[in-house]
Amino acid sequence: MTTPDQPDATTAPAEESPDHQHGYIHRKDEYLKRLRRIEGQARGLQRMVEDEKYCIDILTQVSAMTKALQAVSLGLLEEHLSHCVVAAARAGGREADEKVREASEAIARLVRS
Amino acid sequence: MTTPDQPDATTAPAEESPDHQHGYIHRKDEYLKRLRRIEGQARGLQRMVEDEKYCIDILTQVSAMTKALQAVSLGLLEEHLSHCVVAAARAGGREADEKVREASEAIARLVRS
Amino acid sequence: MTTPDQPDATTAPAEESPDHQHGYIHRKDEYLKRLRRIEGQARGLQRMVEDEKYCIDILTQVSAMTKALQAVSLGLLEEHLSHCVVAAARAGGREADEKVREASEAIARLVRS
Amino acid sequence: MTTPDQPDATTAPAEESPDHQHGYIHRKDEYLKRLRRIEGQARGLQRMVEDEKYCIDILTQVSAMTKALQAVSLGLLEEHLSHCVVAAARAGGREADEKVREASEAIARLVRS
Repeated sequence: MTTPDQPDATTAPAEESPDHQHGYIHRKDEYLKRLRRIEGQARGLQRMVEDEKYCIDILTQVSAMTKALQAVSLGLLEEHLSHCVVAAARAGGREADEKVREASEAIARLVRS
Repeated sequence: MTTPDQPDATTAPAEESPDHQHGYIHRKDEYLKRLRRIEGQARGLQRMVEDEKYCIDILTQVSAMTKALQAVSLGLLEEHLSHCVVAAARAGGREADEKVREASEAIARLVRS
Repeated sequence: MTTPDQPDATTAPAEESPDHQHGYIHRKDEYLKRLRRIEGQARGLQRMVEDEKYCIDILTQVSAMTKALQAVSLGLLEEHLSHCVVAAARAGGREADEKVREASEAIARLVRS
Repeated sequence: MTTPDQPDATTAPAEESPDHQHGYIHRKDEYLKRLRRIEGQARGLQRMVEDEKYCIDILTQVSAMTKALQAVSLGLLEEHLSHCVVAAARAGGREADEKVREASEAIARLVRS
C-alpha cells in the first residue's frame, strides 16, 4: 500500500539510470487518462450508494471498474516485459533472473486478485 | 458504464417499494468509506505514474486496489442474497426465479472480471 | 482436497432429506459429461508435456480447461441458489441465514480462485 | 482445444531447435505428477456428482482444482519467461518482440480465465 520513494539518481539501480526508462513512460498520458477515468468510476459508485441504487446495478459498475483496472495492469505488464525484462535479459547475469522472478510474482498477484 | 436513473416512485418495481430496502443500506457509511479509500487509491496510482515510479510497484498497487474492489463486490452480493433474494424467495413465483437468475449473472460477471 | 463422506441417512441434515434434492441432480448427466470432458483435457495436457509441446500452447489449453471448470461452478451455483437457498429462505429462520452465508463463502472462493 | 502437431524437425521454428529446450522440460516429471493429480480431482468430482453430494462441497473441490491448475500455469509461465523469452531477448530483433507479445497474450488469457 506504501509507495516507496524513488531512490536518488546517484544510488539508482540500473533501471533508473538516465539511459533507461520505464516501459510505460512513452504512454504516460494515456495511463493517466485511464486512471482518471477509473477514479471517476469510484466517485460514480459512491453516488450510486448515496442514492441507494439497486445492488445489482452497483455490482455491474464494480465489474466494469475491475475490468478497466485489469486492462491497465495488463498494459503495464506488457510494457514492463518488453522494456525492463528484455533489457535485463540482454545485460544478462543475475539481473535477468531477478527481473523474471519479480515479473512472475507480479503476474501471480494479478491472476489471484 | 452508465448508471440508469432511478424509476419514479409510481413506476418503481417491487424492490424499490417503501417497505423494501436494499441489503447494503444499513451499512451505507461503511461502503462509502471503502469506496472513498478506493478513489484515493486511484489518485495514488496517478501520482505514481506522474512520478514515473517503477512498473512493478505500480502493479502491486493495482492488485491491492482490485482486491479492495472485489471485497466491496462480495460484501454487496452477500447482502443482496440475504435481503433481496431471500425476500423474493419468500414472495415466491416468478420474482424468485428472476432474482436468482439476475444474481447468478452478477456472480458470473464478478468471477470473469 | 478430501471429499467428506456423505453422512448416514439417520444423521443427515435438512438438505439431505428425502423430500429435498440438490439443484444439479436433474441435470446430473450433463454435469458428468462436462466433468469427463475436463478429465480428458487433463489427460491431453499430460500428453502435451510428455511430447514437449510449446509452453504457450500448453498455457492456452490450461486456460480453456480453467474456463470449462468455471462454467461448471457457475452452473452448480445457480442451481444451488435456485433450489437449496430458495427452499431455505422459504423455510425461514436460521437455516436461511446459514445457507446464504455458506453460498457467499463459496462465491468468494470462486472469485478468488 | 486442439493441440497442434509438432512441426517436423526440418521446418521447426527457433524454439524447437535441438539446442533450445522449453523451460519446463527439466521439471517435466513434476508437471506430469501435478497434472495426474488434477486428472484425479476431475474423477473425484464425477464421483461426487454420481453420489449426489452437497453442491457446496462440490464447489469447494472445483475451487481447489482451479487453484491447482492456476499454479501449473504460473509455474509454466515463469519458466517460459526465464528460458524462451530471455533467450529471444538475447537473440534480439523481431523474435524478442514477438515472444513478449505472445507471452503477454497468454498472461491476459490467464488473468481473464
